[in-house]
Amino acid sequence: MYEIVLIRHGESQYNVQNLFTGWSDPDLTEKGIQEAKAAGKLLKDEGYTFDLAFASVLKRSIKTLNYVLDEMDLLWIPVQKSWKLNERHYGALQGLSKSETAIKYGEEQLHLWRRSLSVRPPLLELNDPRYARNDIRYSSIRPEDIPRGESLEDTVHRVGDFWRNRIVPLVRKKERVLISAHGNTLRALIKFMEDIDEAALLELNIPTGVPLVYKLDEDINPISRFYLGDPEQVAAKARDVAKQGHV
Amino acid sequence: MYEIVLIRHGESQYNVQNLFTGWSDPDLTEKGIQEAKAAGKLLKDEGYTFDLAFASVLKRSIKTLNYVLDEMDLLWIPVQKSWKLNERHYGALQGLSKSETAIKYGEEQLHLWRRSLSVRPPLLELNDPRYARNDIRYSSIRPEDIPRGESLEDTVHRVGDFWRNRIVPLVRKKERVLISAHGNTLRALIKFMEDIDEAALLELNIPTGVPLVYKLDEDINPISRFYLGDPEQVAAKARDVAKQGHV
Repeated sequence: MYEIVLIRHGESQYNVQNLFTGWSDPDLTEKGIQEAKAAGKLLKDEGYTFDLAFASVLKRSIKTLNYVLDEMDLLWIPVQKSWKLNERHYGALQGLSKSETAIKYGEEQLHLWRRSLSVRPPLLELNDPRYARNDIRYSSIRPEDIPRGESLEDTVHRVGDFWRNRIVPLVRKKERVLISAHGNTLRALIKFMEDIDEAALLELNIPTGVPLVYKLDEDINPISRFYLGDPEQVAAKARDVAKQGHV
Repeated sequence: MYEIVLIRHGESQYNVQNLFTGWSDPDLTEKGIQEAKAAGKLLKDEGYTFDLAFASVLKRSIKTLNYVLDEMDLLWIPVQKSWKLNERHYGALQGLSKSETAIKYGEEQLHLWRRSLSVRPPLLELNDPRYARNDIRYSSIRPEDIPRGESLEDTVHRVGDFWRNRIVPLVRKKERVLISAHGNTLRALIKFMEDIDEAALLELNIPTGVPLVYKLDEDINPISRFYLGDPEQVAAKARDVAKQGHV
């Protein structure tokens, strides 16, 4: 049996302002830092350790990982960063207020954009300064592969690809892996692994800064998943996430 | 022409207590954190950027690097960590007070231990808890290769090895490289690159948290090296380093 631990980054500046984030790169808030440290402490107290870790190329994911590893005295382990673990690309919604968007387009449309599987957000124009074509951190990606807005399904494809090619081979070698990523990247990964239906996916709200443990069978199929920590606190955090995007 | 930037970690808990550190793993002090951030800001203001970075497996080096990269908005670049960039192993002196050691053995002996090329410190006993044999971060090293105390010359060999095999190929590919390491690792690297004589090496005091820029010719031989920042401040910091180890 195998095991892997996932974590959604701690609260970011955009979370607290209730903005669509996507590939925007805001920093953690002080609360986000404390969430990350608490997650590291919890993992350590529960006896977890890791051989290597993954993050996206967005600082809220990397810094969350660094705080976790520092608490665990594991800063020295190898860390791989990949854009394939980036948050779902939110297209032209990036940087907009979720509540203003709810007023403008209605809560239903917003819920579709945020939680449906196949609906893409409005795409970024090619000349939009938010389009990542000129960001050197994405210079290794073919320009035509740089997203201008993704449905969750698009995110499932790239995250699933990364899971299959980069992570599964390590898990099979009994490497203990930690992945620090984003709300929708983790929803995409859960969708990829469990193939849960769209209704269940719609209601899947991943709390920030809480370690999510996956138990996997010998074929790397999930047996169970559970959050570490106090269940009531975890549920309250998930409800906070669900509340975003209301008028 | 090529260029590479080296940095010695900011002040650590052991620096401030004036203890021999070596492979001990103390954290940065608040001053050390500020030094690292200032170095990152300076590099950014001077227009530097990096494609990848190296650190040792000791947290003062990794955290210094993380603060530098955060200031430069470069947390996303690849970072490789290797024990070959660890501080010189100080054997049985690790954790001892430099000034008490000076009283016990005399300043001259201490200066030899700290600054000569070939004199090894007293070696760790095999059953010494400070011996890294049971530290999982060194589990990939053959036990017989785990040092119990190094002369600077020993450090020159492993650092030179790492430089030749891991760093030079990247520099030749025009990769812009940052190395976050330690006082004696950087002295070892300078000795390896420039083959300066022992007298000059004895007086080479590398200040903490100051970027050191190396210009290299097409054969990766050094043309010049210089510190970034205010020369008087840099000189004062180097004098502080030289002062350690007096009674």
